[in-house]
Amino acid sequence: MSDLFDKLPPEVSVYEVSPRDGLQNERVTVQLSDKLRLIDAICAAGLKRVEITSFVSPKWIPQLADADEVASHAHAPPGVQFSALVPNAHGLERARAAAMKEVAVFVSASETHNKKNVNKSIELTMKAFSETIGPAIALGMKVRGYLSTVWGCPYEGEVDPRRSLALAKRLHAMGCYQISISDTIGAGTPRQTHEILKLMLAELPSSAIAMHMHDTRGTALANIIVGLEMGIRDFDASLGGLGGCPYAPGAAGNVATEDLVYMLQGMGIATGIDLDRLVEAGRVASSIVGRVLPSKVQNAGVRSLRS
Amino acid sequence: MSDLFDKLPPEVSVYEVSPRDGLQNERVTVQLSDKLRLIDAICAAGLKRVEITSFVSPKWIPQLADADEVASHAHAPPGVQFSALVPNAHGLERARAAAMKEVAVFVSASETHNKKNVNKSIELTMKAFSETIGPAIALGMKVRGYLSTVWGCPYEGEVDPRRSLALAKRLHAMGCYQISISDTIGAGTPRQTHEILKLMLAELPSSAIAMHMHDTRGTALANIIVGLEMGIRDFDASLGGLGGCPYAPGAAGNVATEDLVYMLQGMGIATGIDLDRLVEAGRVASSIVGRVLPSKVQNAGVRSLRS
Repeated sequence: MSDLFDKLPPEVSVYEVSPRDGLQNERVTVQLSDKLRLIDAICAAGLKRVEITSFVSPKWIPQLADADEVASHAHAPPGVQFSALVPNAHGLERARAAAMKEVAVFVSASETHNKKNVNKSIELTMKAFSETIGPAIALGMKVRGYLSTVWGCPYEGEVDPRRSLALAKRLHAMGCYQISISDTIGAGTPRQTHEILKLMLAELPSSAIAMHMHDTRGTALANIIVGLEMGIRDFDASLGGLGGCPYAPGAAGNVATEDLVYMLQGMGIATGIDLDRLVEAGRVASSIVGRVLPSKVQNAGVRSLRS
Repeated sequence: MSDLFDKLPPEVSVYEVSPRDGLQNERVTVQLSDKLRLIDAICAAGLKRVEITSFVSPKWIPQLADADEVASHAHAPPGVQFSALVPNAHGLERARAAAMKEVAVFVSASETHNKKNVNKSIELTMKAFSETIGPAIALGMKVRGYLSTVWGCPYEGEVDPRRSLALAKRLHAMGCYQISISDTIGAGTPRQTHEILKLMLAELPSSAIAMHMHDTRGTALANIIVGLEMGIRDFDASLGGLGGCPYAPGAAGNVATEDLVYMLQGMGIATGIDLDRLVEAGRVASSIVGRVLPSKVQNAGVRSLRS
């Protein structure tokens, strides 16, 4: 039997998306002061990379209409890098005005999802990145790319991983330091993860790939284990699993940061995150949206091993 | 990069425990007719191994006081094997009277948990198995062994896996065809799973080991992936994730059968189970306990990939 775990990375980086991906899917509109409180709690737990908002039009995502205020008022402690989504040149200009040092662009691997999401074909979206990626880099910003629907599309079903690979390579060549490949609908299973990553890692360095897994069907951590075994060291997560549909009890959004960090810590993999403080931050997230969040560690508690 | 998934088993066996492990942890007392309805739904979904009850004293577990009625009235379709827990010679006599063809015995890998559970030391418990395992085999029954707290004890914390191995080997030598090693408190993480299984599989055939994972902290499927990669082909599960504490929303019991089967099916691993019918059975489980169960597939739905 081979020792699968001999080559596990000694540390990984967790990229927190709850203020953006989490809150944009909530039905309640969260106050600016609560968003800042959430971001503070995230930083206090030791997370070093936080996606704090999206500079999209308020017409598209009213939950994030206060993006400029969030970006101007959020305080990044030393060593913490904030990021925000920019959909176009206007979004980049807002990010620049807020002195953001990192931004993220996004495109889907499936045509229909991309059209529904940004009202453009994939090719036109990729072309328009010349207005964001290059200029952002020229402004001294780091640029991250999101590639959605890699594990499946809600409209088209299966997505050819070679198509995802081609787009990831183009994003990398355009200057994205990392491409976060997303299981947007949370349908992925580990063999599929293995196939996708095998293709990707044959042509891109592992540091250029992050996994952004939704836990809709409970498979996020199982997929992440496969990623860890294959050398991925960057994982997106959302406090409490924020971002699931609030009207479907049990339906999860992104993989919960608490559950991911609990697992990594139990495996001896360093994250720099304090799990107790992370659970406290998860309680902040839960209180500002006014509901119990799906994170199992949040609900079971960290300490009950000796309870 | 090695091909981790080259040696995955083409099929696995799912052992359903909701009528026993699930219901024994519920606060509500479920009617006999509802239990029989649940067992019928489980069989209709294609599960071939079902633990239907426990012949313990009703003083210990009032929820299962109708064990004799359940065992006498439950109907096993052709090819389906029912099992039930037997704590002692009296339990075995009850199982014999109900014409059970398989029974299960149980012991913990940690002294304190065993004492709290059966009011005896581990050694006295092992000794007393001479009144159950041998006589059951003499009656023509198959005997399964549960080894609890292998991933950790709620009272003692960490449990030495060499201790678990020694007990598993003794259970195997005494005639148990399979030992189901349990993460009783749902605290296990994948590196630990790897260590435990590496020890076990060096001295026992993989067919003699089943994994019984609780999903309290969301790591059950990640642990099961490691088990699959290492050759385990037998996994216990509970419909809906039944068995979590009903007063802690989000707190899960056993890994949910729906989530496990969704993952296995997505990996092309055969189980003989119809996922749609399984979700229907999960709805029966949910309705008879009167609450939303934690299974994510149950709540998200199987079909939403193209919704």
